Amino acid sequence: MGLLIRGGEIVTADTRYVADVYAEGEVITRIGVDLDVPPGTETIDAAGKYVFPGFIDPHVHIHLPFMGTFAKDTHATASQAALIGGTTSYIEMVCPAGHEDALQGYELWKSKAAGRSACDYAFHMGVTRFDAQTQAQLREIVADGTTSFKVFLAYKGAFGVGDEELYGALTLARELGVIVTAHCENAELVAQLQGRLLAEGKTGPEWHEPSRPEAVEADGTHRFATFLEMTGARGYVVHLSNEAALKAALSAKARGVPLGVEVVVPHLLLDKTYAQRPDFEGARYVMSPPLRDARNQKVLWNALQAGMIDTVGTDHCPFDLAQKDMGRGAFTAIPNGIPCIQDRVNLLYTYGVGAGRLDLHRFVDALSTRAARLFGLFPRKGTVAVGSDADLVIYDPAYAGTVSVATTTVNNDYSGFEGWAIHGRPSVVTVRGQVAVRDGIFVGDPARGQLLRRMPEGAAARGLVPV
Amino acid sequence: MGLLIRGGEIVTADTRYVADVYAEGEVITRIGVDLDVPPGTETIDAAGKYVFPGFIDPHVHIHLPFMGTFAKDTHATASQAALIGGTTSYIEMVCPAGHEDALQGYELWKSKAAGRSACDYAFHMGVTRFDAQTQAQLREIVADGTTSFKVFLAYKGAFGVGDEELYGALTLARELGVIVTAHCENAELVAQLQGRLLAEGKTGPEWHEPSRPEAVEADGTHRFATFLEMTGARGYVVHLSNEAALKAALSAKARGVPLGVEVVVPHLLLDKTYAQRPDFEGARYVMSPPLRDARNQKVLWNALQAGMIDTVGTDHCPFDLAQKDMGRGAFTAIPNGIPCIQDRVNLLYTYGVGAGRLDLHRFVDALSTRAARLFGLFPRKGTVAVGSDADLVIYDPAYAGTVSVATTTVNNDYSGFEGWAIHGRPSVVTVRGQVAVRDGIFVGDPARGQLLRRMPEGAAARGLVPV
Amino acid sequence: MGLLIRGGEIVTADTRYVADVYAEGEVITRIGVDLDVPPGTETIDAAGKYVFPGFIDPHVHIHLPFMGTFAKDTHATASQAALIGGTTSYIEMVCPAGHEDALQGYELWKSKAAGRSACDYAFHMGVTRFDAQTQAQLREIVADGTTSFKVFLAYKGAFGVGDEELYGALTLARELGVIVTAHCENAELVAQLQGRLLAEGKTGPEWHEPSRPEAVEADGTHRFATFLEMTGARGYVVHLSNEAALKAALSAKARGVPLGVEVVVPHLLLDKTYAQRPDFEGARYVMSPPLRDARNQKVLWNALQAGMIDTVGTDHCPFDLAQKDMGRGAFTAIPNGIPCIQDRVNLLYTYGVGAGRLDLHRFVDALSTRAARLFGLFPRKGTVAVGSDADLVIYDPAYAGTVSVATTTVNNDYSGFEGWAIHGRPSVVTVRGQVAVRDGIFVGDPARGQLLRRMPEGAAARGLVPV
Amino acid sequence: MGLLIRGGEIVTADTRYVADVYAEGEVITRIGVDLDVPPGTETIDAAGKYVFPGFIDPHVHIHLPFMGTFAKDTHATASQAALIGGTTSYIEMVCPAGHEDALQGYELWKSKAAGRSACDYAFHMGVTRFDAQTQAQLREIVADGTTSFKVFLAYKGAFGVGDEELYGALTLARELGVIVTAHCENAELVAQLQGRLLAEGKTGPEWHEPSRPEAVEADGTHRFATFLEMTGARGYVVHLSNEAALKAALSAKARGVPLGVEVVVPHLLLDKTYAQRPDFEGARYVMSPPLRDARNQKVLWNALQAGMIDTVGTDHCPFDLAQKDMGRGAFTAIPNGIPCIQDRVNLLYTYGVGAGRLDLHRFVDALSTRAARLFGLFPRKGTVAVGSDADLVIYDPAYAGTVSVATTTVNNDYSGFEGWAIHGRPSVVTVRGQVAVRDGIFVGDPARGQLLRRMPEGAAARGLVPV
Ligand SMILES: [Zn+2]
Ligand SMILES: [Zn+2]
Ligand SMILES: [Zn+2]
Ligand SMILES: [Zn+2]
Ligand SMILES: [Zn+2]
Ligand SMILES: [Zn+2]
Ligand SMILES: [Zn+2]
Ligand SMILES: [Zn+2]
Repeated sequence: MGLLIRGGEIVTADTRYVADVYAEGEVITRIGVDLDVPPGTETIDAAGKYVFPGFIDPHVHIHLPFMGTFAKDTHATASQAALIGGTTSYIEMVCPAGHEDALQGYELWKSKAAGRSACDYAFHMGVTRFDAQTQAQLREIVADGTTSFKVFLAYKGAFGVGDEELYGALTLARELGVIVTAHCENAELVAQLQGRLLAEGKTGPEWHEPSRPEAVEADGTHRFATFLEMTGARGYVVHLSNEAALKAALSAKARGVPLGVEVVVPHLLLDKTYAQRPDFEGARYVMSPPLRDARNQKVLWNALQAGMIDTVGTDHCPFDLAQKDMGRGAFTAIPNGIPCIQDRVNLLYTYGVGAGRLDLHRFVDALSTRAARLFGLFPRKGTVAVGSDADLVIYDPAYAGTVSVATTTVNNDYSGFEGWAIHGRPSVVTVRGQVAVRDGIFVGDPARGQLLRRMPEGAAARGLVPV
Repeated sequence: MGLLIRGGEIVTADTRYVADVYAEGEVITRIGVDLDVPPGTETIDAAGKYVFPGFIDPHVHIHLPFMGTFAKDTHATASQAALIGGTTSYIEMVCPAGHEDALQGYELWKSKAAGRSACDYAFHMGVTRFDAQTQAQLREIVADGTTSFKVFLAYKGAFGVGDEELYGALTLARELGVIVTAHCENAELVAQLQGRLLAEGKTGPEWHEPSRPEAVEADGTHRFATFLEMTGARGYVVHLSNEAALKAALSAKARGVPLGVEVVVPHLLLDKTYAQRPDFEGARYVMSPPLRDARNQKVLWNALQAGMIDTVGTDHCPFDLAQKDMGRGAFTAIPNGIPCIQDRVNLLYTYGVGAGRLDLHRFVDALSTRAARLFGLFPRKGTVAVGSDADLVIYDPAYAGTVSVATTTVNNDYSGFEGWAIHGRPSVVTVRGQVAVRDGIFVGDPARGQLLRRMPEGAAARGLVPV
Repeated sequence: MGLLIRGGEIVTADTRYVADVYAEGEVITRIGVDLDVPPGTETIDAAGKYVFPGFIDPHVHIHLPFMGTFAKDTHATASQAALIGGTTSYIEMVCPAGHEDALQGYELWKSKAAGRSACDYAFHMGVTRFDAQTQAQLREIVADGTTSFKVFLAYKGAFGVGDEELYGALTLARELGVIVTAHCENAELVAQLQGRLLAEGKTGPEWHEPSRPEAVEADGTHRFATFLEMTGARGYVVHLSNEAALKAALSAKARGVPLGVEVVVPHLLLDKTYAQRPDFEGARYVMSPPLRDARNQKVLWNALQAGMIDTVGTDHCPFDLAQKDMGRGAFTAIPNGIPCIQDRVNLLYTYGVGAGRLDLHRFVDALSTRAARLFGLFPRKGTVAVGSDADLVIYDPAYAGTVSVATTTVNNDYSGFEGWAIHGRPSVVTVRGQVAVRDGIFVGDPARGQLLRRMPEGAAARGLVPV
Repeated sequence: MGLLIRGGEIVTADTRYVADVYAEGEVITRIGVDLDVPPGTETIDAAGKYVFPGFIDPHVHIHLPFMGTFAKDTHATASQAALIGGTTSYIEMVCPAGHEDALQGYELWKSKAAGRSACDYAFHMGVTRFDAQTQAQLREIVADGTTSFKVFLAYKGAFGVGDEELYGALTLARELGVIVTAHCENAELVAQLQGRLLAEGKTGPEWHEPSRPEAVEADGTHRFATFLEMTGARGYVVHLSNEAALKAALSAKARGVPLGVEVVVPHLLLDKTYAQRPDFEGARYVMSPPLRDARNQKVLWNALQAGMIDTVGTDHCPFDLAQKDMGRGAFTAIPNGIPCIQDRVNLLYTYGVGAGRLDLHRFVDALSTRAARLFGLFPRKGTVAVGSDADLVIYDPAYAGTVSVATTTVNNDYSGFEGWAIHGRPSVVTVRGQVAVRDGIFVGDPARGQLLRRMPEGAAARGLVPV
């Protein structure tokens, strides 16, 4: 009935110690030295291993209609991959197109996940238009426990919102205590630059980056921060990719704008030369914002380590090579995405912690705790503590292996990190007290995942003792 | 024998939950729901209260010869005040003058504390000259467990070091895995401006601030950061007081310089108009860097909340009114200091957390956890976890009271915060499993405090599982 | 026939010497020591006086429908006031509303000026929509010699353009070699904040500034600069009012964006407390961007002196007290403007040069030369050189007087600078070789002014010797 | 007797027109269309050519003991090279070592120039120590008309000054109205890094740049600006080489510090890969601050064009290949310098104006006018105006040629720009009304040059009409 993790080194964002962790049912009930447990307790020996809180991916796409096709994953394939890699919760974007009904979209996205996810999940509700009906629906959706929005400053004519809608969405968010995540690129400039490049015959994937320059993202970030400042809403910049955008975000933070900043794995480890690979191989590396000039990577790593960047997500979004081929005639038709939901934790451990770029606590903080706190999952998720869900990652730092499409459950035919060495891997992963993964193999209940209903800010931040 | 804290809401830098905490001897051994404990266990009911890790003040002065006199506290008076206010460990500056022997100074400072402190303590070793003999002594001192240095870029001719000594100290620090804390004001400019102002007959305490302008501190901060960058040493700016200096520090952080930033309570809550009070009352508010223009306060609070500023200390340093009077003829002869060792936690809780400027976790992080991590006390101190010292603050957020010199054990005849309302106060404070304070009264063992011997970086950062 | 200015000290943006200036007809033909001139030459003794090039005001409104009424000046009243104050050319904004026809607007504005201006004038063509027809008309207008555009990022639903129109206008401007001037405030944010304040019952003129915060202007400036960067067009920010916006502009300049920056007299000398004056007196000081917090003034003066700000205009726009009264119920209905076309040169000489804030050459540069160069009037205007128009200001630095509505030809019943002391005034002002003003009195030909037809960039920049 | 330049296009920092220029004796007395001149006037046909004011090089070394040897030029070789290249005045650094007598040094440097220079010259007086005697001597030197100082923050133990001397020098400079030029690198850090690199066996010229990193120059610049701010002195950063240092300088300018900024030709056109050339060829490109990473060049060009960088000098300093060989064992023994006194104007015209990076007026301003104004030579030098010295450059933009050591009078055996194409060259150069150069050949009076005695600020800035 109970589960005991014995003798591991528990590492959270701010603690580190050797102890036993005991979960009775779904939650942790005791932490201590040489705990006495009831007979028959399932026991996992964690000696010589880390015990991390389950990791949280705040930015994934699973059900995703995009450019006339659909991302390849189901919640089954994605959630099992997530768990194999140590991610025990993710937040998916609900992305109805601007002309679609918000509530229908929300229900559709929920239905795709219900009963099919092996790990817990939540949603960011995409606000792709903002009329009176949508506003009423958003109130319902928030009441349903989905307390974060997503807006696109890019994707003119599809998902993007204009200034008026943005102001409206933020004002509503502030009223409801909801945080607003944003894809920050100026829609008009992207559209115009795409047109200009295509008109010049520049159609290959290597032109994707020049169609969305760093300055265009910096301007979107600046605008979003200004709108937050004027409305008082809390915000969160997704997949920030470059130094100029970071400056805009940090300048806002320093003047008191409540703004979270996310980077995603591809921008930390890959650069724009990948998208310039010949024979259309570059298409595998097309995402937005695009992979950037390599000089930005050091800047992002520094800010991540310094805590100026809050979280690391993936923007996981698998399109296979056949789908990527839709863009052979024009880079604008290449479906965007570099799947890595399974690899985030191991890549960051290897190339962050192992490489000396990332402190071990900052690693846990950026990949789990801070996402939990920003998005109302805390302290249920994001920490190893009594009363928290027993989502635990018993991590073996001695493991050495390789990233490969062959060893993932993600439904795709390539990996953006194929062949990359990793040092460290989860030995055991649990979901609310049940073992889900052992040594790279999913062994759990494929339908264990639940929708995480969250409280809005204020409510969520309040503990038992009112401040 | 054991100690049980029952039913409080444990709040650390990254966790928050209701549970019991059990300490057997000096350390926490179990955390859980409804823990079974041996008969005879001392039990403290913490229901409706927070259980914080003991707070750490990384910047205090107790034994301090300064301007021909001595600060008024002993370790007895200071440590009990600290505990009453929830601070269970502090780090004192060892400040031999430049012409004095480093090791003798170290032994002197140790002897002043030994057996007289009610709480645990450590030292920053002041490096006020850097010749071959001093270098050898510093190695001994580090081997003795004092793994942080303090340098003064200010105080020409007294404590200050020049560029060559600074380079030497940082290089040694890097070799030894020692962090270097720095008082960052350009010594020459301060000395010159003091002379100029006095020559113009500007002798009152209101001229102290103009003698140490913001730009002078910014330049010191810039220089210190550059020296860190060139030597690879880890650094820490003490009592950063203004926006220009903050910009220099944050710019360094963003380019990867490992630099901690401390603010102290007076700069967050007081401004330079206090030092302009008539009838020499301003002298009570003379410290260095000086109290600044009020516009800086919002900037400091924002950066503190955003985690760009790491820690909050006090720079506690009590000189009484008679001592302050030494400077009636010249502000340069006013002993520097605004005592607040007892008030830090309550003031920050009231005017930070309570006023909505500071998140509750950031509060714990800034006043405890981050100091522990920066200075090699972690995870022994700075968190509530199995294996950590049972330094616990059972905090009553419902308390309402007032700061006053009448209710402190600090040996002084005024308080810089006299009459300030506080909302929240420790109900019980423990030091390694023993109760030291109940409801504002010291009730513990006056000699319980131990010197905290620390491991240098690398050693300290290494846990059981090597990364 | 000819005109001789004898013995003055000629001061331009980069020269300074005592000499005679001789104009034959409209242009300067000789400069030298003790020039021989034909008998009968009109001679003006300039000994002990400066001889400046005629000043240029790059930002005035004369014919202006705004908020349902019209600015009070005609070209007769405004041009004579300009000349009395030493301004010999101005550039007026053609401002058709978004629903009006561009070419008809242009012809209307031209017709208002034709034959009625005592000084030379040019137009910035307002681009308030950007459809195919407008685009064709703009080509005609540029071909007619009006080679600068004006866009409004503010004034949603009236003059403002969206991102798509902005991109189009800049792309056309780049093609045609036209510079684009921009009013940079985010339209949506202003509209929303206005609505919010009015809804809260905040209707007085003191709420005008909070309805257009500094950050809103900074964001507009950032966006405009980004659009320039992406299109390659040359731009010019009008009436930049605060430090945050200046940072956005300077950051763009430093990365190579060709961006001119203008400040206007009110932002240099007045602050937001003027708009807070009781009894609706504040309405006299309502303009957009609004008068700001006084701390910005030092920043603007510094940047002006350093040449980081290029020009000083007025945004002259007279509405009388009865018109201002339209906004008694709501600050949003107060017609915007603080008239100062006559006072710009004297105020800047007195409070800039005289106060030690502004170098004498930078004064000439900012008030004349740089506007001439940016807007294609150079070297015909903006300098004292052979071949340039004999627009000359013989300036008496010994004059002492006072600004007053009683001594201006501006058609208004108040002055924003009533009672301000001035030290220095034009003794004589000439327009293309004819005396127009003597000692504060217009004595010239009221219809001498001509439309200045300009060449687009490239053409204008090319001299006789191709680079 | 007189000299007439007929029909050229006169281009100054702020004017541009076709006219005749007539000089009677040494100064310009008339400018006009079709001037009547006395019979026998020497006439130069300038049709199709530019007429520029003589260019000024604010930073050259001629007599220079350095690293145990001497730079190769005499005033004869250097001044004729300067004139061939269009530079009609230069300012040489007087550089006594710290242990030498300032006044003796000044007299020595004067004696080296007296009667040997073909062009006019002035001195920056090196302040390499600051005791009472030196202070008295500096007053004498300023009274002699040498109204600018030079300080080195680098070169510990040789030329460098510490903080106290720096403060003293700036305070004296402020009192005397003298501008202080500064070489801004932190002396200690350079010395330490040199030692560290050599100890690691990194002895080649490619290690010169890593021994003086960008951050070290940025810190020196920051410190110098802070000292200016605190003393109120005017300053000037010589040979600023990188973006980080530029940020420090611009930040100071923006807050009102009176700070001029100079770049030198090598940093605009060469990068650190030159110093990495094999077979010790890199030694030819060793100067301080070193040639930098190429990304800095665009930043410097942008700031130059925007007027944020004021001037372009050379830091001309010829050491021949045998002298460079002194550093074969250690880069620290390579004499520093890349000679280019003859090439500055043509290189900037070709790679600045011709390449579209530099406006023609900014070119004149940066290479002549602004140096004249900063250093008290204006309006005698730096402009084409009545009363100014007839130092004129009749420039042929149609010339095409090549830089080569074979075509210079500089006394050296290599050129740092050997083989670089130039488009444009002076056809005729005059020195105070006498022709000195025709088509690349010096044809003038080899002893015509005079010491330019300058007035201190205030005096120099005052014209006939007091402000
Ligand atoms: Zn996105
Ligand atoms: Zn996404
Ligand atoms: Zn201090
Ligand atoms: Zn201190
Ligand atoms: Zn406007
Ligand atoms: Zn306007
Ligand atoms: Zn130098
Ligand atoms: Zn030099």
